[in-house]
Amino acid sequence: MQKKRPPKRPQRGTDPRRPPAKRSHAVSEKGQSEPVLYGRHALDAALKNPNRRIVRLHADARGLRWLEEVGRSAAAQMAMADSPLIADLAARGLPHQGIAAEVAPLKTPPIERFTSPSATDVILALDQVSDPQNIGACMRTAAAFGATALMTQDRHTPGESGALAKAASGALDILPWLRVGNLAQSFARLKDAGYWIVGFAGDGDIDFRPDSAAVQGLKGQPTLLAMGSEGKGLRPLVRKHCDLIAKIDIHTQMESLNVSNAAAIALYARRLLD
Amino acid sequence: MQKKRPPKRPQRGTDPRRPPAKRSHAVSEKGQSEPVLYGRHALDAALKNPNRRIVRLHADARGLRWLEEVGRSAAAQMAMADSPLIADLAARGLPHQGIAAEVAPLKTPPIERFTSPSATDVILALDQVSDPQNIGACMRTAAAFGATALMTQDRHTPGESGALAKAASGALDILPWLRVGNLAQSFARLKDAGYWIVGFAGDGDIDFRPDSAAVQGLKGQPTLLAMGSEGKGLRPLVRKHCDLIAKIDIHTQMESLNVSNAAAIALYARRLLD
Repeated sequence: MQKKRPPKRPQRGTDPRRPPAKRSHAVSEKGQSEPVLYGRHALDAALKNPNRRIVRLHADARGLRWLEEVGRSAAAQMAMADSPLIADLAARGLPHQGIAAEVAPLKTPPIERFTSPSATDVILALDQVSDPQNIGACMRTAAAFGATALMTQDRHTPGESGALAKAASGALDILPWLRVGNLAQSFARLKDAGYWIVGFAGDGDIDFRPDSAAVQGLKGQPTLLAMGSEGKGLRPLVRKHCDLIAKIDIHTQMESLNVSNAAAIALYARRLLD
Repeated sequence: MQKKRPPKRPQRGTDPRRPPAKRSHAVSEKGQSEPVLYGRHALDAALKNPNRRIVRLHADARGLRWLEEVGRSAAAQMAMADSPLIADLAARGLPHQGIAAEVAPLKTPPIERFTSPSATDVILALDQVSDPQNIGACMRTAAAFGATALMTQDRHTPGESGALAKAASGALDILPWLRVGNLAQSFARLKDAGYWIVGFAGDGDIDFRPDSAAVQGLKGQPTLLAMGSEGKGLRPLVRKHCDLIAKIDIHTQMESLNVSNAAAIALYARRLLD
């Protein structure tokens, strides 16, 4: 049984006494902070996503030309030209490509959307990975390998931001992002629904290679691949809810792989089985 | 035959009229700019590397404690404490972990070091990848999979920097970094030396999966894996010097993989053959 979720922390910037966060949020008329997405891939995916509410679009001459080129004249006409937001992104050296948007964050889908899986469904779970670029890179790769969702725990995971969306290269608006209150409990729930839960750790019991018997056993099974944060790895309780703990065999001269690279390898190797 | 290398561009910061670059270099007494490495993994590897000249070590109390803990008392005594450089890294939000060093860049090894390869030698080549974090991430993964070297072209590739070293997580001081004047010519030279040259592109002729006949053919062959820059891919002349062009099969909803993730997959899959 799942416990009630803890109450949500107040969103950054909703407290009017606090100045808005500078690095990845803008402040809308209501004084609320909105993620700012920038760059063509992120914006293209956001504009195509029917669930994405765009609060305001910003563009410079280059961005407006691009909107026209991709057949988005209506969007071009609504965009705020000569926007100080674009100038601000440029001043911070962020690769905006002339286009940005204040958006409303997407709602997380209910876990029930994933509890009747097909044989090739794969979910990538990240346990307290805190770097937005790493999360975005994981999203991009998960979408590239046709994963069903990215799964994270609400707390200790950053929300939507420009840096995350940029690294995700559009995947933020393509791949469902399932944010749960408790990762271990959600693993138990998905296990009941038929998933095999594979955790990754440097001291894993089996080598994650497509020709190993344990990995072959995942063939035709919905699979959840779980990566820990760099440094700390999977938390003990999360690890306890895994069916098997795998490692990616690396040379002793390096301590670990970057989490998005480890995820890429796991997703690739899992997909070789289908 | 290899053409003479083009003359080197002046190094950043060597022109006394220009202010020193702010983001990843410090200025030594001679007015020359030195890369600044920071963070424990980068510093640990630099201190262990006999070829690395450390111009000056900087540490705060935490960094000094760490140096003592890892048995580097001599280094701790030479370190500049209460350093403005550490304060500057902190102000820029860089994860320095209390330790940093101005260093002299490493010399590139001669290509001859790689022209008598063994059957399992793998070189990872990057064609004009310009993002230091991506290059560092590729280094880290290449070292993790026991690659022999990272190879790049001198021009249009950034040099050593703190951001690159941080992403490399020590690999900058572990993996030989072969910088050549002309990538295509160097491919030809390595091909003569017995390497199989595999280029990666979205429109590749074969799927890079370990059970495909073409990939099986790499077994027991020294291999060079070449990745293009995001957006532009491999340049035509570089591509022409490849023995085969492979692709990593991904879902059509995404255009491409991040270069370090693609490299991780290629290195992993190549290593499965040994």
